[in-house]
Amino acid sequence: MANVRVIDLNSDLGESFGPWSMGEDAAMLDLVSSANVACGFHAGDPAGILRTVRAAKERGIAIGAHLGYRDLVGFGRRNIDPTSEELIGDVIYQIGALKGLAAAAGTKVTYVKPHGALYNTIAADRRQAADVINAIRAVDPDLILVALSGSPIVAQARNAGLTVVAEAFADRAYTPSGALVSRREPGAVLHDPELVAERMLRLVTEGTVEAIDGSMTRIDVQTICVHGDSPGAVSMARRLRERLKEAGVGVASFVQAKA
Amino acid sequence: MANVRVIDLNSDLGESFGPWSMGEDAAMLDLVSSANVACGFHAGDPAGILRTVRAAKERGIAIGAHLGYRDLVGFGRRNIDPTSEELIGDVIYQIGALKGLAAAAGTKVTYVKPHGALYNTIAADRRQAADVINAIRAVDPDLILVALSGSPIVAQARNAGLTVVAEAFADRAYTPSGALVSRREPGAVLHDPELVAERMLRLVTEGTVEAIDGSMTRIDVQTICVHGDSPGAVSMARRLRERLKEAGVGVASFVQAKA
Amino acid sequence: MANVRVIDLNSDLGESFGPWSMGEDAAMLDLVSSANVACGFHAGDPAGILRTVRAAKERGIAIGAHLGYRDLVGFGRRNIDPTSEELIGDVIYQIGALKGLAAAAGTKVTYVKPHGALYNTIAADRRQAADVINAIRAVDPDLILVALSGSPIVAQARNAGLTVVAEAFADRAYTPSGALVSRREPGAVLHDPELVAERMLRLVTEGTVEAIDGSMTRIDVQTICVHGDSPGAVSMARRLRERLKEAGVGVASFVQAKA
Amino acid sequence: MANVRVIDLNSDLGESFGPWSMGEDAAMLDLVSSANVACGFHAGDPAGILRTVRAAKERGIAIGAHLGYRDLVGFGRRNIDPTSEELIGDVIYQIGALKGLAAAAGTKVTYVKPHGALYNTIAADRRQAADVINAIRAVDPDLILVALSGSPIVAQARNAGLTVVAEAFADRAYTPSGALVSRREPGAVLHDPELVAERMLRLVTEGTVEAIDGSMTRIDVQTICVHGDSPGAVSMARRLRERLKEAGVGVASFVQAKA
Repeated sequence: MANVRVIDLNSDLGESFGPWSMGEDAAMLDLVSSANVACGFHAGDPAGILRTVRAAKERGIAIGAHLGYRDLVGFGRRNIDPTSEELIGDVIYQIGALKGLAAAAGTKVTYVKPHGALYNTIAADRRQAADVINAIRAVDPDLILVALSGSPIVAQARNAGLTVVAEAFADRAYTPSGALVSRREPGAVLHDPELVAERMLRLVTEGTVEAIDGSMTRIDVQTICVHGDSPGAVSMARRLRERLKEAGVGVASFVQAKA
Repeated sequence: MANVRVIDLNSDLGESFGPWSMGEDAAMLDLVSSANVACGFHAGDPAGILRTVRAAKERGIAIGAHLGYRDLVGFGRRNIDPTSEELIGDVIYQIGALKGLAAAAGTKVTYVKPHGALYNTIAADRRQAADVINAIRAVDPDLILVALSGSPIVAQARNAGLTVVAEAFADRAYTPSGALVSRREPGAVLHDPELVAERMLRLVTEGTVEAIDGSMTRIDVQTICVHGDSPGAVSMARRLRERLKEAGVGVASFVQAKA
Repeated sequence: MANVRVIDLNSDLGESFGPWSMGEDAAMLDLVSSANVACGFHAGDPAGILRTVRAAKERGIAIGAHLGYRDLVGFGRRNIDPTSEELIGDVIYQIGALKGLAAAAGTKVTYVKPHGALYNTIAADRRQAADVINAIRAVDPDLILVALSGSPIVAQARNAGLTVVAEAFADRAYTPSGALVSRREPGAVLHDPELVAERMLRLVTEGTVEAIDGSMTRIDVQTICVHGDSPGAVSMARRLRERLKEAGVGVASFVQAKA
Repeated sequence: MANVRVIDLNSDLGESFGPWSMGEDAAMLDLVSSANVACGFHAGDPAGILRTVRAAKERGIAIGAHLGYRDLVGFGRRNIDPTSEELIGDVIYQIGALKGLAAAAGTKVTYVKPHGALYNTIAADRRQAADVINAIRAVDPDLILVALSGSPIVAQARNAGLTVVAEAFADRAYTPSGALVSRREPGAVLHDPELVAERMLRLVTEGTVEAIDGSMTRIDVQTICVHGDSPGAVSMARRLRERLKEAGVGVASFVQAKA
């Protein structure tokens, strides 16, 4: 491969709440090109979100609305079955709140990446997916949706007129069809930073990843999610960033790529 | 007085929450020119706020952010002492959320009227007043602030560059110096719709109100707050609206007046 | 039928929250023998719960813990998938809180009736049912569980050592097998107070109810749920109470019956 | 000093919430004799509280209700002005919830130590102090109240019939009159573990502490609060525990001492 390539790295940030801290935000802000910022429903209080948005702006990192179900104690990881009216309202409310905080920091929200159970549900649940898509279009149709590569919502959202960016997870195993191996299966989560870096480099440069059965599968991604919720996770993200640099692959937001 | 005069009537709306209903929103929407819409911290869930915003838009009523302390069970009526960072974040977050819902409804937020304990506190507490003012300026300096007529925040906010609209309360007694009689004093709250209508008509046309000691006091107001939290309150607001019409006084948002 | 018969009537009470009122508690307290009192997770604030508990005590009505998923805005009507550890903790916490308030009022909690989505889920979901059963046994094994007549949890809880009381719903249609007709089906909810009263009287005296297909089905119940969330609902409950009295059927808590 | 002496060490525990961890609970459980367990209003979710209660029980540590204002995002550190009805309800609710979780763990709650802003407010605010005292008496008059040494609530609660235990803070400076030096004053918080250990040893064995002006002041305490919210805080608590042991002073709950 002769071409210089560019990929986006995104991470969940701003997930502290009141007195409780979460994640290695300071470290991650120097490693990623896109900050998925919590919007207050699964995590994040306004003052903390504002600090995160300012820190992202200082580093020129893209800011996305990392919105979730209204479930603080469950951290948005539990399935809830809201009505369409509830879900649409909740999505708009969270996007609006983050847009307000971004405006106050002199920057703006450019994308939406749903969180946790909502992210997983809308990947395949067409009704809730439609609610999220409709909410985004209602509040700001220029917002880009980050969605699971290969999932039905990608086409559904594009058909509805949204720009969609497909996402891979650096530390997850894939099935031969390009889906994520369920966390309940052995080998679903990868822990070796070197292996993860090599896999993601190949994915970026060749468009393929080795599936859990050893076959090569092709998946189309424009952003890679890296975690920063532990020192080990930060080390993995750092190694990936270094490996990309060694291979001449730049890290930059998909927003610039779109413009 | 020969001139045709115009005054704004405002009311608190959108204060239902989940399964719980509050206020006679449908009736009040036909009586007022400005809707103070709850933003979720003292009342209001996103789906209900969106319904309220849409109903206000249909009637051409101005929409204001009725934001409060984060205290649902206390309905924002209890004093809380947030840090400046907390209060600034909370104000921006609530304004942003409402702006998002207004945008989704094809309209916009034009003013801010703090609620309950926050409204009363910032009338005189310069630190918290400065936090609210700074938050408004940071998120959208074109937002108009509705504040208690005669209170220190009026000048403080104007000096900081905000447009301020001074407010009277239709059903409240005033001291000779133009301040509200404390609710703990006898006679602080008026209950006779006819008396209230006459008092407010005089206030609009002559700029004066009879104080609790019988003297006439001059207060400068551009909006009058009417309540809709009970059938009796709605009747009082309706009588005021009628009396204004009989006297040739129009009811219109201060936002148009400003433009 | 020569025997004097007795049945329990239960209703959901204490479901106000902060400034928001819900239900005709004062009226219902004079009609029922068991008060299902909200515990703060789907509805109910501590001061209001305490008022409800005191009012129930004054009338000699049995007090039950009406506990739900932690979902205030959704009123506990939305499915959530808590872990066993979360659900067990939530159930114990709510029971404990209500026991504390009951103790402060000089009375006690004698039964548990889960609310809304939790009630429906545990009727058939053995895992969540086991969590609720284990939680009750851990905090107070003398608490009686009120459960949907004919549902699997009845046997599951009895096998685990709990006393279970089976419940019918006055205003609901039944299938020939004794299950509730889904609310999504036509005719699922009954609105005629006279019809409801006759059906429930037959259920109490003969143990049968006419199913939606016209056949008679036998269901075993020790308590009947009546609603008080609207004036119409109160009228229906009142008519049922009158009809029972006319037929010589007493209304009394199942707790006394057990003792 | 010839006598064997015994003192209680208490610490705030169970202050995690959902996915957010707080404090070095595991370490502190081996150092203290009394666990102030969060009750869900300022911190603590039911599952986590239950884990904490079980861990305390395993080690034979006394369990107290560490209850606070309903202010999760502010961690109960912000002043709120609840009505008496609200505050009484909130206190009973929290105590009841913890009693339920303790019962489920096969143990019980023996004391109450209010948290944060509530602790500081009731030290001198007689109305809110009376509310807390009345709430404790209503739910369980055998509960011991832990209160700030030398503060007015000590006598107020004793006069109302409660057993009161007076508390010192290991890492705080005292005025010559035995009050805490305000955190806003220089030197209010001590950081040297050795100095803290010596001061507390003298307090336990001689009943005196060196005030901030160098004079010796006499304060009457039955428990010492140590913090575990950072590794440094744990080290300080550990050094104090060691120093007490070296001096032949035992560490045991005031509950046993009372019995």
